[in-house]
Amino acid sequence: MIKATVYVTIKQSVLDPQGVAVQGALHSMGFGEVENVRIGKYMELNLDTTDAAAAEERVKAMCEKLLANTVIEDYRYELEV
Amino acid sequence: MIKATVYVTIKQSVLDPQGVAVQGALHSMGFGEVENVRIGKYMELNLDTTDAAAAEERVKAMCEKLLANTVIEDYRYELEV
Repeated sequence: MIKATVYVTIKQSVLDPQGVAVQGALHSMGFGEVENVRIGKYMELNLDTTDAAAAEERVKAMCEKLLANTVIEDYRYELEV
Repeated sequence: MIKATVYVTIKQSVLDPQGVAVQGALHSMGFGEVENVRIGKYMELNLDTTDAAAAEERVKAMCEKLLANTVIEDYRYELEV
């Protein structure tokens, strides 16, 4: 069993409206020191395999095909064997 | 400037319908080895301060008040000074 953690974030050059909204809400709640809020996704998944090299290839394929929209999002992942 | 990274995840005892949907999609795309998908949020924010102890208190307050719904979600955060 390999545990994979995937982080998907909006590219720096792309506007993040959800981050802008959260920043506005934080400011109106008195957290005026907050700047540059960016919101992404965090995914945990278990892979029923023990081959770490193959698992890495598979996780990369999942990110490219489904988990991230690579036009506007970046992704990175970590594997725990 | 302190950089904070916040991870918000659904509690283990709470059903994660988004994770179930993603797992189903991955299975139907041929990634049958994937199990137990859980999806959370990943937030990056900058704090315009240099006091790390105060920043930690502030980030904790933001999580409790806005960023996480502590009834069904857990949160953790990291600070980079």
